[in-house]
Amino acid sequence: MGYAVVGQRVPRVDAREKVSGRALFTGDMTLPHMLVGKVLRSPYAHAQIVRIDTTKARSLPGVKAVLTFEDVPKIPWNSAGFPPSPGAILMEDQYILTDKVRYVGDGLAAVAAVDEETANRALELIEVEYEVLPALMDMEAAMAEDAPLIHAAPQNVMAHMPIVIGDVDQGFADADIVFEDTYYVPKVYQVSMEPCGVAMAAPDMDGRVTIWTSTQMPHLVRGITAHALGLSTSQVRIIKPPVGGAFGSRLGVVNEPIAALLAIKAGKPVMLKYSREESFLATESRHPIKMILKTGIKKDGTFTARQMTAYIDGGAYATHTPSFAGPVAGWFLAMYKSPNIKVDNYSVYTNSTQCGAFRGYGNPQVVFAVESQVDDIAAALGLDPLEIRLKNHPCAGEVWMWSSWVIESCGLDEGIKRASEAIGWGEKRNKQERLEYAQGNGITADSTKKRGVGMAYMMHVSGARPMLHETSAAVVKINEDGKANLIYSNSDCGQGAGTALTQVAAEELGLNYEDVFITKTADTDVAGFDIGSHASRQAYSGGNAVKKAAAAAKEKLLAMASEILEVPAADLEVAEGMIRVRQEPEREISVAEVSHKAHFGSHGHQIIGAVSEEPPGNPPVYAAQFVEVEVDTETGVIEVLKVVAAHDVGTAINPAVVEGQIEGAIQQGIGYALTEEYRYHPGTGKPLNANFTDYKILTAVDMPEVETILVEASSESGPFGAKSVGESGLVATAAAIANAVYDAVGIRIKELPLTPEKVLAALEQKGN
Amino acid sequence: MGYAVVGQRVPRVDAREKVSGRALFTGDMTLPHMLVGKVLRSPYAHAQIVRIDTTKARSLPGVKAVLTFEDVPKIPWNSAGFPPSPGAILMEDQYILTDKVRYVGDGLAAVAAVDEETANRALELIEVEYEVLPALMDMEAAMAEDAPLIHAAPQNVMAHMPIVIGDVDQGFADADIVFEDTYYVPKVYQVSMEPCGVAMAAPDMDGRVTIWTSTQMPHLVRGITAHALGLSTSQVRIIKPPVGGAFGSRLGVVNEPIAALLAIKAGKPVMLKYSREESFLATESRHPIKMILKTGIKKDGTFTARQMTAYIDGGAYATHTPSFAGPVAGWFLAMYKSPNIKVDNYSVYTNSTQCGAFRGYGNPQVVFAVESQVDDIAAALGLDPLEIRLKNHPCAGEVWMWSSWVIESCGLDEGIKRASEAIGWGEKRNKQERLEYAQGNGITADSTKKRGVGMAYMMHVSGARPMLHETSAAVVKINEDGKANLIYSNSDCGQGAGTALTQVAAEELGLNYEDVFITKTADTDVAGFDIGSHASRQAYSGGNAVKKAAAAAKEKLLAMASEILEVPAADLEVAEGMIRVRQEPEREISVAEVSHKAHFGSHGHQIIGAVSEEPPGNPPVYAAQFVEVEVDTETGVIEVLKVVAAHDVGTAINPAVVEGQIEGAIQQGIGYALTEEYRYHPGTGKPLNANFTDYKILTAVDMPEVETILVEASSESGPFGAKSVGESGLVATAAAIANAVYDAVGIRIKELPLTPEKVLAALEQKGN
Repeated sequence: MGYAVVGQRVPRVDAREKVSGRALFTGDMTLPHMLVGKVLRSPYAHAQIVRIDTTKARSLPGVKAVLTFEDVPKIPWNSAGFPPSPGAILMEDQYILTDKVRYVGDGLAAVAAVDEETANRALELIEVEYEVLPALMDMEAAMAEDAPLIHAAPQNVMAHMPIVIGDVDQGFADADIVFEDTYYVPKVYQVSMEPCGVAMAAPDMDGRVTIWTSTQMPHLVRGITAHALGLSTSQVRIIKPPVGGAFGSRLGVVNEPIAALLAIKAGKPVMLKYSREESFLATESRHPIKMILKTGIKKDGTFTARQMTAYIDGGAYATHTPSFAGPVAGWFLAMYKSPNIKVDNYSVYTNSTQCGAFRGYGNPQVVFAVESQVDDIAAALGLDPLEIRLKNHPCAGEVWMWSSWVIESCGLDEGIKRASEAIGWGEKRNKQERLEYAQGNGITADSTKKRGVGMAYMMHVSGARPMLHETSAAVVKINEDGKANLIYSNSDCGQGAGTALTQVAAEELGLNYEDVFITKTADTDVAGFDIGSHASRQAYSGGNAVKKAAAAAKEKLLAMASEILEVPAADLEVAEGMIRVRQEPEREISVAEVSHKAHFGSHGHQIIGAVSEEPPGNPPVYAAQFVEVEVDTETGVIEVLKVVAAHDVGTAINPAVVEGQIEGAIQQGIGYALTEEYRYHPGTGKPLNANFTDYKILTAVDMPEVETILVEASSESGPFGAKSVGESGLVATAAAIANAVYDAVGIRIKELPLTPEKVLAALEQKGN
Repeated sequence: MGYAVVGQRVPRVDAREKVSGRALFTGDMTLPHMLVGKVLRSPYAHAQIVRIDTTKARSLPGVKAVLTFEDVPKIPWNSAGFPPSPGAILMEDQYILTDKVRYVGDGLAAVAAVDEETANRALELIEVEYEVLPALMDMEAAMAEDAPLIHAAPQNVMAHMPIVIGDVDQGFADADIVFEDTYYVPKVYQVSMEPCGVAMAAPDMDGRVTIWTSTQMPHLVRGITAHALGLSTSQVRIIKPPVGGAFGSRLGVVNEPIAALLAIKAGKPVMLKYSREESFLATESRHPIKMILKTGIKKDGTFTARQMTAYIDGGAYATHTPSFAGPVAGWFLAMYKSPNIKVDNYSVYTNSTQCGAFRGYGNPQVVFAVESQVDDIAAALGLDPLEIRLKNHPCAGEVWMWSSWVIESCGLDEGIKRASEAIGWGEKRNKQERLEYAQGNGITADSTKKRGVGMAYMMHVSGARPMLHETSAAVVKINEDGKANLIYSNSDCGQGAGTALTQVAAEELGLNYEDVFITKTADTDVAGFDIGSHASRQAYSGGNAVKKAAAAAKEKLLAMASEILEVPAADLEVAEGMIRVRQEPEREISVAEVSHKAHFGSHGHQIIGAVSEEPPGNPPVYAAQFVEVEVDTETGVIEVLKVVAAHDVGTAINPAVVEGQIEGAIQQGIGYALTEEYRYHPGTGKPLNANFTDYKILTAVDMPEVETILVEASSESGPFGAKSVGESGLVATAAAIANAVYDAVGIRIKELPLTPEKVLAALEQKGN
């Protein structure tokens, strides 16, 4: 495409410091007189606190602050804290510390002390008397007529969102066949390398508080924390050091208000660092959803009606859930064209840890259900699984139901073609050819290990417009040596956004990649408002802002060069740090020389470009993932042999980063499909696997071969054509694996994860 | 003047954190794995290093880096490091560590070790063999024909700057009387609360280095340090925490290159913190100058010729000195009108610590000489000391010889009038009235304690234009709560610039003072280029940039408000956070509401104003200081009874800050007059008083009554009329005291400080 920096596999801006262990994360920081914060957590899933006595804790030497519900502002708030937006529903049902615990691990008191040992001892000295209430650990129990209320919501339903397009009853009547299935996906954790819940707060003497925190959204955390503390937004300053992975877990306030309140009460800096177990216990995870899908279809594969009734388990607090129900509906609406569609989403409180954002934000759940059912439909109708998708998915020029906007570009068809070829779809789906192939690989027809291939497709977003405002801001300043700083509210959480944005700035400025320096730390006192790293938006939304700020600086640069070279600015071009006359490239001047003249010439000034804006659109991205599995019919173990992931990401600003995103996401997708499930004791609500021994995530050695195919259907509105990639890698994976298992052994498991027990049970039921 | 925030005595932005001891200075910081740096210093004033052996030091456990001249880049540099400017002469005669020591304390090796004890032990283990050269401790010795050369400069004269206007020979011929006197002022130290020379450097893995340093000029330190290290400017990042006083001592690189090189070599952060003694030994101070003044005058008080030959003792390295000679000439040129003026400035190397910037930058030296002589001239001619000054000083509308620009405004005449009344000039200068006054105060005519009053006047700058570029940059962003961040390369070093600039931004934005938050820490990766805190420029130069950035933001704010209120933006005004229709003040909307709409309305964006520019001019400021002293003719002790300081500062953005600047400066001015002198052993060149026991600075209890009179002759080109105040408070003080001593006891001491010994000797010579 003729780009110099965009499209290059340059090393990430944080690569060397991270692989060498030199990067300083929030938890590595210290301040003079810093205290250690600790939170007292409920051992009960549901209980009223009758009495709490902190006398002994307060009198323990070294304890500098003790907080309970009595000490926190009586301001209800919401940790997701969406700002006013068309798609945001803000149910404020949280306090910084609670007087009624709603899950095992709910925070009811906090202390700050001179060291960890003293803080832990202080927690032990807090006396609490509970009135234990029934633990409502599943949605059925919570929605029962006589269930106790977790909050004030009748039948513990926090929200009901019905959406109707057309007339589904008529659509089902028009169908040749109607399919109805129920799917369930469990709670899974993001388990980033850096545990979720690391914040250090330091109060100043003027009523402000600075919080260093590992977050995906510095500016929104600022606003939410300020609100929870009863401060004005600008009285809180958020600084975000490098973040060791997030995947949505840091898309909201975590423990910043507790840290801040401890610091304010103690008058000293406080570090509040959750352990891995606390991170499991008390931070947000992926929503379990029960989805009842009803689909009417003609024999030729035309959908006549599509319907989803979804019960979303939000856990103990609302946070994202009522808003999250919107995208959940959107993912369903947008996947397949149908004149009649209905969605009924119920958001339900239970006594589990509140759920929030996790890579895909509801899409992996919905795609698992939809693509499982579409696979069954294709099988039942004898349709080609690829054809039914190619026929029905929305494409460029059509309206995308998620946003109601027209789709800019679509690389799905090419992706399906290339990925199906790469996995060997034709041969392997043909059972006769598969047999010969298997024998060629030493697998006999009567082997207990059966192979199959499956696929699923998905669409995802490049931001959350028009549901949310997608504002980013960027300032580009060109220094006297011709190199540039990019000042950005860098919410890079390990995904490589900072690298991509640096490439965008360098490309637009005509500088070399290594001559642009992005702020690696976000600072809300310094960087313009940025909504954060959600919805895979940084390349597209952030990239647009960065590109415009760079363009604004370049315009000034070329205006100066135009005067020096005595040619119109329009005749100039800049690349690799040199400004040249387009028709006479020997007439040139370096960016360094022009910038030096700007600083120290007749009118001393620095060339600066500054922009704050929303991006123009929200182009969807597409992926088709193809999987080959081997099912051991004796043990029930599913082995993923290969994944071919064809992703339309628009222009890949850095193909290595894009591939890294997809490959990493596939690891999470396979875990979602096969091993991950955060479980509670159904009676007590105690977590059963809040640790890495019992909660099984895949490691590098568990990974199959992954082949990534980039289909760069570039977006006209994106920076250099970019769309997005952050989340899309795992959305289709579980469905593709489930479909491959079906292809291998003919069983359809509608509940994740696909454990050996479920496989064996399904095989037994099928009569194998 | 109708300002809401400007002119108010609001508390300083850093007041509470500083008085409570909570502010974190550079030396308070720590980083994981931080090492301690130490410098090996020469015990000789002048010596060639014949051999240096670091073997033992390098093998000491815990030592992570040892540097000598062999290890430093062979790039000559200059610690003052002026960027290209009409008035800058850059003699590059320094290396990060030297192989020829040129003063006692010169740095010849450096180590970084795990703790201070190990670092000190490593220094002891470095073996050095010196070839000792003669110590040239005064300018006469250094300029002697056979003197050894400290650098390659013939006769150790680093620069000679002759300036001739008109024909002084003719002028002296036209004079009724010609006066010729020689004055000498000694080396004095800035002695800020925080010792000079505190830097922490941390290398990254990508060839960049971040340096936290207590500096007055983050951006220039970036460039100089990069140059000395052989890096490109942008590869160095300077972060400036709060600074505990500077007074010019931090106007240049101090020890940043050593810290950075140690950190790079060790691959770890290094803290390099000079002790108080090291700060005396090895950092820049005020230039000793010998000034020979020759002045021709008519009996009516009209100057016909003025001439100064000045020998400026630059010490061991050039740093500021050759450039400094320019302002020294300028101060002399500008004070009194004369058709014929000549200046001959010689900048001389000696084997004392290099000299640099100290509040006033040569002006206190020149004013001491000029105003002492003018006082003698007035006495000799029987002229009123006030009249001779009023008659001859340049005033508004006239050309100011310092800059060759026309003077915008001049409040000197009013200042002289008001200050002379306040000190009781008329009564106290009249010997008969004085006698009666003294008797009324219990002092008999034959008392050994004699009182007198004296005065001196001065002009000073509001920046260094047109000698230097005076670029500042500011970014103002209005947050969703209607409060604003001001992002500025805050080189506030304790003088209150950050407070004044916050007031300027608040005034222009129409916000309350407490709703604007300036970045208290400067960061060159983030803030636009700023030349630093020199030449009293921050209120004027910085203020202009801040005001324009705020105006740019306000324009966008009012454009939005105009749409909402449906009135032209020109009809709107904003004050105290409310935007009102000028003719219908009941039609109003808050800044918060407009800004919130900007963030979360139909086009999400943040209102941001960004500016980088030089200010339009450089208006001079004026002061007349009047002093009453009592001279004990038995002990020679001079007591300053009262100082009345009338200062034309233009609009006083914050009168409390302005008064604080003047009062603090007067303390330094009295010390300069009476007690301060940094002395060397004339033979060995060893410092004799590099500590607070022997170097006498005034404390709070030593201070006389100070009455400050602000004459606000506002500048049209200044922000809300502001000019400057940072340096001017001490410029005239020593001269006024010397003149008061003359008035009291009739002795004229032409060499500072006015010690009891000198007073007694002069009294004896006079025959008292």
